[in-house]
Amino acid sequence: MESGTVAPEGRSSGSEADGEAMMALIEELFPICRSITGNGLRQTLRILQRHIPLQINEVPTGTKVFDWTIPNEWNIRDAYIARRDGTRVVDFVAHNLHVVQYSRPVDETMSLADLRPHLHTLPDRPDWIPYRTSYYAENWGFCLSHSAMLRLSDEPYRVVIDTDLAPGHLSYGELQIRGQTEDTVLISCHACHPSLANDNLSGIVVATMLGRHLQKLQPRYSYRFVFVPGTIGSLTWLAQNENALGRVTHGLVLSCLGDPGGMTYKQSRRGDAEIDRIVAHVMGHDAEHHQVRPFVPYGYDERQYCSPGFNLPVGCLTRTPNGEYPEYHSSADNPSLLRPESLGQSLAVLRTIIAVIEGNAVYRNRSPKGEPQLGRRGLYGMVGGERTVGFDQMALLWVLNLSDGDHSLLDIAERAGLPFRSIRAAADALIETALLEQEPAASSATGRADRRRHE
Amino acid sequence: MESGTVAPEGRSSGSEADGEAMMALIEELFPICRSITGNGLRQTLRILQRHIPLQINEVPTGTKVFDWTIPNEWNIRDAYIARRDGTRVVDFVAHNLHVVQYSRPVDETMSLADLRPHLHTLPDRPDWIPYRTSYYAENWGFCLSHSAMLRLSDEPYRVVIDTDLAPGHLSYGELQIRGQTEDTVLISCHACHPSLANDNLSGIVVATMLGRHLQKLQPRYSYRFVFVPGTIGSLTWLAQNENALGRVTHGLVLSCLGDPGGMTYKQSRRGDAEIDRIVAHVMGHDAEHHQVRPFVPYGYDERQYCSPGFNLPVGCLTRTPNGEYPEYHSSADNPSLLRPESLGQSLAVLRTIIAVIEGNAVYRNRSPKGEPQLGRRGLYGMVGGERTVGFDQMALLWVLNLSDGDHSLLDIAERAGLPFRSIRAAADALIETALLEQEPAASSATGRADRRRHE
Amino acid sequence: MESGTVAPEGRSSGSEADGEAMMALIEELFPICRSITGNGLRQTLRILQRHIPLQINEVPTGTKVFDWTIPNEWNIRDAYIARRDGTRVVDFVAHNLHVVQYSRPVDETMSLADLRPHLHTLPDRPDWIPYRTSYYAENWGFCLSHSAMLRLSDEPYRVVIDTDLAPGHLSYGELQIRGQTEDTVLISCHACHPSLANDNLSGIVVATMLGRHLQKLQPRYSYRFVFVPGTIGSLTWLAQNENALGRVTHGLVLSCLGDPGGMTYKQSRRGDAEIDRIVAHVMGHDAEHHQVRPFVPYGYDERQYCSPGFNLPVGCLTRTPNGEYPEYHSSADNPSLLRPESLGQSLAVLRTIIAVIEGNAVYRNRSPKGEPQLGRRGLYGMVGGERTVGFDQMALLWVLNLSDGDHSLLDIAERAGLPFRSIRAAADALIETALLEQEPAASSATGRADRRRHE
Repeated sequence: MESGTVAPEGRSSGSEADGEAMMALIEELFPICRSITGNGLRQTLRILQRHIPLQINEVPTGTKVFDWTIPNEWNIRDAYIARRDGTRVVDFVAHNLHVVQYSRPVDETMSLADLRPHLHTLPDRPDWIPYRTSYYAENWGFCLSHSAMLRLSDEPYRVVIDTDLAPGHLSYGELQIRGQTEDTVLISCHACHPSLANDNLSGIVVATMLGRHLQKLQPRYSYRFVFVPGTIGSLTWLAQNENALGRVTHGLVLSCLGDPGGMTYKQSRRGDAEIDRIVAHVMGHDAEHHQVRPFVPYGYDERQYCSPGFNLPVGCLTRTPNGEYPEYHSSADNPSLLRPESLGQSLAVLRTIIAVIEGNAVYRNRSPKGEPQLGRRGLYGMVGGERTVGFDQMALLWVLNLSDGDHSLLDIAERAGLPFRSIRAAADALIETALLEQEPAASSATGRADRRRHE
Repeated sequence: MESGTVAPEGRSSGSEADGEAMMALIEELFPICRSITGNGLRQTLRILQRHIPLQINEVPTGTKVFDWTIPNEWNIRDAYIARRDGTRVVDFVAHNLHVVQYSRPVDETMSLADLRPHLHTLPDRPDWIPYRTSYYAENWGFCLSHSAMLRLSDEPYRVVIDTDLAPGHLSYGELQIRGQTEDTVLISCHACHPSLANDNLSGIVVATMLGRHLQKLQPRYSYRFVFVPGTIGSLTWLAQNENALGRVTHGLVLSCLGDPGGMTYKQSRRGDAEIDRIVAHVMGHDAEHHQVRPFVPYGYDERQYCSPGFNLPVGCLTRTPNGEYPEYHSSADNPSLLRPESLGQSLAVLRTIIAVIEGNAVYRNRSPKGEPQLGRRGLYGMVGGERTVGFDQMALLWVLNLSDGDHSLLDIAERAGLPFRSIRAAADALIETALLEQEPAASSATGRADRRRHE
Repeated sequence: MESGTVAPEGRSSGSEADGEAMMALIEELFPICRSITGNGLRQTLRILQRHIPLQINEVPTGTKVFDWTIPNEWNIRDAYIARRDGTRVVDFVAHNLHVVQYSRPVDETMSLADLRPHLHTLPDRPDWIPYRTSYYAENWGFCLSHSAMLRLSDEPYRVVIDTDLAPGHLSYGELQIRGQTEDTVLISCHACHPSLANDNLSGIVVATMLGRHLQKLQPRYSYRFVFVPGTIGSLTWLAQNENALGRVTHGLVLSCLGDPGGMTYKQSRRGDAEIDRIVAHVMGHDAEHHQVRPFVPYGYDERQYCSPGFNLPVGCLTRTPNGEYPEYHSSADNPSLLRPESLGQSLAVLRTIIAVIEGNAVYRNRSPKGEPQLGRRGLYGMVGGERTVGFDQMALLWVLNLSDGDHSLLDIAERAGLPFRSIRAAADALIETALLEQEPAASSATGRADRRRHE
């Protein structure tokens, strides 16, 4: 049951149905062997097309993107380590993490000693298979549980990796929603990880559902949802859209949104962009356990969006961040790690964030000399003398007092210590009684004080 | 015993005589039934004229003041609820809080059931009579203790409110003290509450005594003390003085200055106006229990002075603020709540605040290259090598070091962590030895750093 | 073993040899009776010339320096208080603190009562001799232990002070090291205290060793080390170099660097000068116990350098500051108070500070759109997927991300929370692969953000 306008909503709580629907989509996508190129990535994007009208772009191998070049396309059919009798002791068919991503074709028989440097394990987590890649240096390898490796006896093994590494394309998906202005909100998630659930799929499905929600609305901002392979994919998108980047006014990278941990927001490189303030505001009012962290130049694709040549206002929203939960980048990051209610609440917080992005604007009090007489407009209690004033009336007074062209509604909500939805509702009531009017530079959500801060 | 100049004083402590004199005036004013217009207000202002040469202004009903219109004048002769036998069960003569302010005339007999919606009580404080008003919506009502209401039996009552609601005037008082400059300090208090002691009378008498003190001096600033009905009165003053508002450089709204609580300062909307810094400084050095709070657009007439069309540098000084002591807006806010020593200390803190307003200025060290040789000017101990330096000598060094045209004496006091009076005394000693001179823009108390902050 | 370039060093730890060498020099200098003029000061500077090519300047008595005049030169041959039988009860030969500095010649016999006002003791520290001066008011006196004074019997005493107070010169020493630019680092210490070890000699020997270290290098900045009598000496240097003061970009006053206490940095008057940030950064990463304090206009010669007419970026580095250790300005401030390891660590911290001054600069990422591909340049691990990234790689990412012309390497180190030497090493690696280039305004160590902060 989605509303038809982007209105401030009540305290963000996920619907149970949303959570279950997202879990189902994750289960469907989980077995696919995605990589930064290839058919697994394409198949993933096509499944998403059943939910949102994703445009799939194919960029040829060899295309230069800034300092990088799009690599060969990688596709894998099979891979295993087998004993002389054919018994597979490591088998890609059983788990796609068993092969180091971008392994070149191999078909050799070798001793355990020769094989050993190509085996990756997690000694501290002896039952988990690690996730390893070698995209830009030709190599090959297998990942397996440490306990499985210890069980390998010293005998010759047949080692087969049946892959293609050949010119092809890098695929990425994009959903564009045209708003009333060309000012654009960028939502980005990486879609290049094979069977990893929280780090990859949770972000993909939450972004998909958020896109589906926004498609039904008539938003003020335009939206671009990009589903890209990490690093090379976001760089490709940046290179192909370089002229449009000046319109990106807000952005979020999404990942790790299904684990039971609290929410974490990593600020954009700017640190005080409107998106940084909005997410901190929403989480402060809506998310019980949450933290806001400063930007660091490591993490997901915000590294690219926030590189100094772009410096886009793009933060990163997760629950437990990359590298900070034990199951990260291992076979233990599977659907059993996720909670439908976590996915649901992540989506709900994002919808509230979007509502603030959409609803934030600068207004002007048309009766700025003294307080206007709210009573005769039906906006104020008629019997005076009560000890305190209600929250709704405080919101009215705050909006009137600070709507001087210098303060956005978000500025007002922050100074008042009230949730944005209360301030937005007060502004709507004041607009209805003609006490408030939008500032001429109507498309800007940013108060003059804000703008001065950035000059 | 008042001094003839506005010199920095020692640590603010109220004189006992001041406190007792203010208590006596409160006792005299307490029984009068004030409202936002009418004879009770007029009588109050006339009593104040015995202490200060207050000018009483009368503004006709119907005058437009910004978004408001001055209402009919309200005068009350009698009001009661009586049993059939004439016994008054609620009687205005016994306590003027019994009638909702601005009640229209009534003379009816009615059942308790019909009367009930017009009765206001405080169930949580069953022995107190609440204070209620209905200035701008025609209505009538009685206030009584909850226990008295519970004793009313189900019988017909004669209900009489003998009031006039008719064209007349809104009255307010003003004391103007002409200083050396037209830069003006505004002191405002509301004078519209009937028998309420802390919330109303304490502010009125402290303002009166402060005005009497200032009248005997030759201040640098001009002063305007206004005694106005809340909201409509301050709006009227603002409307009548709109062209002079640019000269208001400092302002304070006074109320609730007699209760035993610590002092509270609510900042102006600007938050960093000189008055905000001065009051925080004085309270930090002189008031043992105190707090400074940010502006909120609710409270007393600072709401009007700080509305976005004026944004005057006006804060609000109280002891326990409005709505935060249990007796607020009830019959329990009577003279027994007040302490003479609280009134006295409030006045003393205000006199110190005035001394800082008057004494703050920007000077220039005339020997800015290295330290001047204080010893040969008798400003420094003659034998060197002692482990520490006295506070007085530190004050001299601070004034010399920071008097570069960028720092006011208040800036220096804050950075030095010393009370303003020490810094002022050091400046006076340095002026006497010609090491310090006033900055050319002599009337400004504000350093260049300050001014930059506001650009 | 000193390196040939000013390279970032490892965590500052003093070499044992340095500490012992500095102790030996302190022992040699300790017995000399220095004052603000005279032969003791000259002899001290000549001993330093054995370690560094100090230029000794002689400025005549009577020379005007700003508000001051260079006083007569003071030299002392002998001084004592003797019984009638010639027994010396107080004897300058035994300890040069026994005479108040700048005492005029005396040869009288007087009663204890007449002598008493001229005797200075420390009643709280009955076995210590205090240090007292009377440079600018003609006077005479003796300092002695309080217990010795109590033992004086009521008898006539012969009082002899055999001094000259006559036109001569004020002497000070200066070591100039010419760097690649004329931007200058000022290192200043006072050299006017007689037998006092921590307050005076520790600063002198650490400055001497630091100068010797810098002489062997080819620094970017020019350096001026000044060894001056307190107050009048720094004023004299300022007066003689007034035209060059605009090139002083960093400065430190050194004293009290040998006691066992933690390090203390007192900021320059500016508070946010580059030197203030550098010392705080180095102490934060290298000194276990340390504190940073705001400027106050009392202390050592930073009082003169930071007077409003100069406002030089000069802070003061000590271990336990002046006046805060009990032995300060008494005979207990002798070499037994000092620790060779404290002297060594003070020197090491200073060398690290110099390395940051020398190494700080603004660079520009030449591949600012997205991250450059570090892997193919050998700057990044080749197998991906590990949970965390090493500190060295984080330093590379930080330098790339923030080298936009707005941030110096120090800015980057502060934001990254990494020691400067890691950031400097990352910058060097990036310069080698041509990913980083120096900003055109190459001599400035200050980022644009910094510069804006000061406009």
